[in-house]
Amino acid sequence: MGDWVSDDYVMASYLVHQQAGDFYKKAQGIAVGLTVGSWTDLPAERQEQMKKHLGQVVSVEELGEDEAGNRKAILQIGYPVCNFTAEIPALLTTVFGKLSMDGMIKLVDLQFPESFVKQFPGPKYGIEGIRQRLGVYDRPLLMSIFKSCIGYETKTLAELFYQQAIGGVDLVKDDEIFFDDTYAPFERRIEACAKEAERAYSVTGKKVLYAANLTGPVTEIVEKAKRAVEAGASALLLNVLAYGYDVLHRLAGDPAVTVPIMAHPALSGAVYPAPQYGIRASVLLGKLMRMAGADFVLYPSAYGSVAMERTETLAIADELRMDAFALKRSFPVPSAGIHPALVPQLYEDLGNDQIVNAGGGIHGHPDGSAAGGRAFVAAIEAVLKGRTLAEAATESDELAKALQLWGGK
Amino acid sequence: MGDWVSDDYVMASYLVHQQAGDFYKKAQGIAVGLTVGSWTDLPAERQEQMKKHLGQVVSVEELGEDEAGNRKAILQIGYPVCNFTAEIPALLTTVFGKLSMDGMIKLVDLQFPESFVKQFPGPKYGIEGIRQRLGVYDRPLLMSIFKSCIGYETKTLAELFYQQAIGGVDLVKDDEIFFDDTYAPFERRIEACAKEAERAYSVTGKKVLYAANLTGPVTEIVEKAKRAVEAGASALLLNVLAYGYDVLHRLAGDPAVTVPIMAHPALSGAVYPAPQYGIRASVLLGKLMRMAGADFVLYPSAYGSVAMERTETLAIADELRMDAFALKRSFPVPSAGIHPALVPQLYEDLGNDQIVNAGGGIHGHPDGSAAGGRAFVAAIEAVLKGRTLAEAATESDELAKALQLWGGK
Ligand SMILES: [Mg+2]
Ligand SMILES: [Mg+2]
Repeated sequence: MGDWVSDDYVMASYLVHQQAGDFYKKAQGIAVGLTVGSWTDLPAERQEQMKKHLGQVVSVEELGEDEAGNRKAILQIGYPVCNFTAEIPALLTTVFGKLSMDGMIKLVDLQFPESFVKQFPGPKYGIEGIRQRLGVYDRPLLMSIFKSCIGYETKTLAELFYQQAIGGVDLVKDDEIFFDDTYAPFERRIEACAKEAERAYSVTGKKVLYAANLTGPVTEIVEKAKRAVEAGASALLLNVLAYGYDVLHRLAGDPAVTVPIMAHPALSGAVYPAPQYGIRASVLLGKLMRMAGADFVLYPSAYGSVAMERTETLAIADELRMDAFALKRSFPVPSAGIHPALVPQLYEDLGNDQIVNAGGGIHGHPDGSAAGGRAFVAAIEAVLKGRTLAEAATESDELAKALQLWGGK
Repeated sequence: MGDWVSDDYVMASYLVHQQAGDFYKKAQGIAVGLTVGSWTDLPAERQEQMKKHLGQVVSVEELGEDEAGNRKAILQIGYPVCNFTAEIPALLTTVFGKLSMDGMIKLVDLQFPESFVKQFPGPKYGIEGIRQRLGVYDRPLLMSIFKSCIGYETKTLAELFYQQAIGGVDLVKDDEIFFDDTYAPFERRIEACAKEAERAYSVTGKKVLYAANLTGPVTEIVEKAKRAVEAGASALLLNVLAYGYDVLHRLAGDPAVTVPIMAHPALSGAVYPAPQYGIRASVLLGKLMRMAGADFVLYPSAYGSVAMERTETLAIADELRMDAFALKRSFPVPSAGIHPALVPQLYEDLGNDQIVNAGGGIHGHPDGSAAGGRAFVAAIEAVLKGRTLAEAATESDELAKALQLWGGK
C-alpha cells in the first residue's frame, strides 16, 4: 500500500478535471471544508484546539489538459485519522462523501498509517491460509463457477458441483445473482455440496472449497454466516459493494466465521470506469477489499468478455498482494471470459498466487464440465513446466479440444 | 414510480453507448445471461421449468450517435421478481451487478410491480407524519446544518443547537462527517440537544427535530438507533451509500426505531454523474431511497455550490413525492449553497413539500446563526404570501442583511 506519509493522517489522492479555477485553492477548500469546516473564522484559541483536526494539502500536481480542454491535476489531501473511525463507511464518507458530488473529481488513491490499518481485520486466512486448507502450495488455484443456479434444486446443484469437482478444480462458487434459493436453501445446499466435495476427494484426492452466496438482511447476515459454518461451509461469497464494505469487515472480524470470504465485484462498474468521476478500481477492488477482509477478490480480467485495462488489473493484484503492515494477502481472481488458452498470459501476469476462474470456459467444453476442468488443470501444469499449451495438448485430449474451441497460441 | 409493466417482472432501463454491435443482441444477452445463464443449450423440458426465471427484452430504442461517434440506445429488460429477494442489494446485484462492468452502460430507470414494492418498508413517517410531529402543515420546512461538529464538546454543540433552534428552523442536522464523537458522545449529545429543543420551544413555541449522525458497525447500528430513541432522539441521519441501502431498510422496517430517517447523499457523486456509466441520480437518490425507507433525502440543488442539472433535481423530487402504491412520500431536501435569496426559486420548483436546508446560508449571516434562521423564515413567509423578498426585507432586518450579502432578486 505504497508510501505512508504520516501516522496521523490518511492521505487521499484525487484526479480533478476543471475548466477554470486555481487547483491549490480547490485543495485548500477540501482540506478545510471536509474536516473543521472553516478556519480563518475561528478565534485563535479555538484554532489551537482544532489544529489536530484540520486537513492538510499535501501536494498539487498539474497534469496539463484533456481533449476537451479541461485542465487536470492530482490533489493530495491529508485527513486527520482522529476525525473518523476505523470503518470503511466512515473513511469513504470523510474523504469522498460530499466531495464526490463536487465537480469532475475521481478518488484515485488512499494511503493509510499503520495505526489505522491495524484496526481493520484484513483477510482472516489470506493466500497462505487458503493454500494450507487446500494443501496446494506451488501453483495457481483453479475455480469453477456454477453455470447457473437460479431455479435448480439442491440435488441438481449438488450433482453439478460434483461434476466440477472431479474435473480437478480447487474451488466452486455460486453465481452471484443467486438470491432466491427456494429450491436449494442455503444451508441445505452447503451440506449437500460438502458431501459432494468429500465424494470427489475420494476419487481425486483433492480438496474443493464451495463458496456459497451469502445474502439476506445485513442485520442477520453475520449470524447466517455462522449457521453456514455449522452446516459445513468451506467459503462464502459476498457482493461487497451491494451489501457494504462494513458487512465484509464484520464477517472477517468475527472469530466464529471460520471460512474464507470471497468478494464479488458486482456493482463496482458503476463506480470505477469513468475517467472523471468515481473511485479507481485498485482502491475499490484492491486496497479497500483487502483491508475489510476479503480472502479472494474477483475482478474483470484484461482478456475476457468484461474487459478492464491490463495496467489496472495489475494494480488491483498489486494492492491485494503487496506488503501492507500485518495484513494477510488476498488472492486476486481475474474473471470473465477466461478459457484454457489464456492461462499462459494469466501466469505471466500474476504467477502462482492467483486463482484461475472460469464459468463458460469450463462448462462450454465439448465434453462437459469435468473435461473443462481437466483442460485447465492440464494448461496450468504445462505453464508450470514451461511447456507450450500445444505441446501439453498432445497428452491431454481435454486441453486439445479446449484449444480447438477457444483458440490456442 | 411511472408505468408498471407486469406483476412478475422488475423492469430496468439502461443507456448503452457502443462503437459497434447489435443492440438487440446485447439486450438478449443481458436478459438471458443475468437470469438463467443460457437458454438455447437447455433441453426442452428444462426450458419449460426455467421459463418463469428467464429475463425478457422489453424494448430497444436507438438514439443516434454521441459526439465521439458512439451509437446510443435505451435497452429495457424485464427481470423475473421470483429470481431475487425484496432487498436493495439483491435487486441491484441482479440488474446491475456484473452488467455494470460490461462496457459503457448506465442504469437509468427501474420500475417495480406492486407486489415487490409492498415488501419494502418505505418511509415510516413520510411528509405527512413529519408534519404531524412538527405541527407544521402549510409551508416548506427549514433545516439548519451544524457549521462543524468535529472536535466540539457536547456543551458547545448544545449551545450551537439552541442558537439554530431559536432562529426558527424546524430541523437541525449533524455534519455527515461526524464520526469521532469522543468529545460529544452520540447519546449524550442527543439528550443535550433534546433539552435545548425544549428550551427553544419555550421561547418560540416551535418544535425542532435533531438529526444525529448514526454511525458504527452495521451489525450494531439498529441497536444503536434504538438507544438513540431511548435517549430522546427525534431523527437520525444516515450516509446510506456508505453503509448500504439495506441498513436504511432495516432501520425503517424496525418498529422500535420510532424516529424519521434522513438520507445523506455522501458518495453518490461516485455513481451518478458520468453520462456513460453508473446509476442515474433519480434512481439512486429518489426511487431506491424512498423504497428503502428514507423520510428525508438530501441531494445537490441546482443552484448551490455543488450543482446538479435542474431537470435531474426535479426528477429526484418527483420520485420522492409521486404516487407509488402504498409508499409514504419522502421530503426532498435540495442542499448545498442555499441562501435566503434562493427561496423563491426553490418554492417555484417544489412548492410546500420540501425542506429548505442551509449551512453557510444560516451561519454566515452577519448577525449570526439565529439571525440567519430568521432571514430564511422571513423569506419563506414572503414567498407564501406572494411578496417579493425585497418587499419582505423592509420588515425584516435579518432578511435585508442576508439579501445584501448573498444578492436578492
Ligand atoms: Mg455469474
Ligand atoms: Mg457537511
